[in-house]
Amino acid sequence: MTNPGNSSRTKIKRLPEKAQTDVEALYSVLDSGLVAHVGVIDHGQPIVIPVGYARDRDTLLIHGSSASRLFTLLASGVPACVTVTRLDGLVLARSLFESSMNYRCAMVFGTATRLSGQAEVDALKVVTEHLMPGRWDDARQPTTKELKATMTLSLPLDECSVKISEGPPDDLDEDLESDAGKTIWAGHIPIFEQLGVPIPDQYVPRGTSLPDYVTTWAR
Amino acid sequence: MTNPGNSSRTKIKRLPEKAQTDVEALYSVLDSGLVAHVGVIDHGQPIVIPVGYARDRDTLLIHGSSASRLFTLLASGVPACVTVTRLDGLVLARSLFESSMNYRCAMVFGTATRLSGQAEVDALKVVTEHLMPGRWDDARQPTTKELKATMTLSLPLDECSVKISEGPPDDLDEDLESDAGKTIWAGHIPIFEQLGVPIPDQYVPRGTSLPDYVTTWAR
Repeated sequence: MTNPGNSSRTKIKRLPEKAQTDVEALYSVLDSGLVAHVGVIDHGQPIVIPVGYARDRDTLLIHGSSASRLFTLLASGVPACVTVTRLDGLVLARSLFESSMNYRCAMVFGTATRLSGQAEVDALKVVTEHLMPGRWDDARQPTTKELKATMTLSLPLDECSVKISEGPPDDLDEDLESDAGKTIWAGHIPIFEQLGVPIPDQYVPRGTSLPDYVTTWAR
Repeated sequence: MTNPGNSSRTKIKRLPEKAQTDVEALYSVLDSGLVAHVGVIDHGQPIVIPVGYARDRDTLLIHGSSASRLFTLLASGVPACVTVTRLDGLVLARSLFESSMNYRCAMVFGTATRLSGQAEVDALKVVTEHLMPGRWDDARQPTTKELKATMTLSLPLDECSVKISEGPPDDLDEDLESDAGKTIWAGHIPIFEQLGVPIPDQYVPRGTSLPDYVTTWAR
């Protein structure tokens, strides 16, 4: 988070200046999330909405309704910011000031381009396989009408930043050495996302087994 | 998510027009999260950053570094959007088009006001007690210097929207009745955040027990 206390453990990178290892950090953060927050300006007002997304090589893909005003706005080529944040833990420092959260955050700046035809179908497959690996081949494919109702956008990963905050708290020496500091518990508590037990809907015939590909999903 | 398939299960509310039950939905979403995504416009470019936050009655509180350009911008009274999203599950419909995610999302529109003096300390306590209940009284309090390095902002919950998508998929009748639709597993898979085992840092003396208040935290 934008916490005053974690600057020493925060890395900010701009892609144009960075080595392969930073591209890997960017890809790793983007590939680990399910939801991105897209920022766009609508009549001078910033709007931030959650979207499902996926990375496809050096582009970011998002999809929504073609009736959505915000997606139409995005497709018109206005500046956008797509942020993916993974909350990894709570950091309990001895001082409140150094207390913070561990997280990985990737920000992508750019303008979106609407995909159509086979490029859109390919992109929807990438998004589906990111969110629900194995599902594309099992579920009923989109019809022409459904594709028309879907807007699929691509953003290049040209201008990005990655911030990672991890590990234990970073307390001041005086807090480590003070009597109070020596008695207080300090450390970090991991946070992770977990999938619960799948719940079939009322139309699934009894005895229908969960697809194998679902059983391998883990967050 | 902004998915074309879930409109029937999505509720959009504007606070000015809504009943008490909708305020409760808003409060419930805001109170359930740890991280908000703040959108602000910087020289025509939307920027979306994650921040720790808390609700205090009918205001939203966020804090960051007073050296942060974006927090300085927010404090100057420019339009902001603060979005809190809780991802609750994957929705596996028989068609890819109706497949989506379950989530709760609250969006707050407005301008921020910087807090100072006792109002800032009170707000920081509310944020700390939201993120780490019980920690405020245990950890070392902020010094004047640390408060100077912290920027604490308040936004009124005057203009907000809440979207909630929950439950099973909403398949088309023809997919429920088709041969293929009858054999495919469909339903939803809950997603929840979980806290892992607390990890003390290297300076905590052996035998120091985890504070009782931490053991009651659950996500």
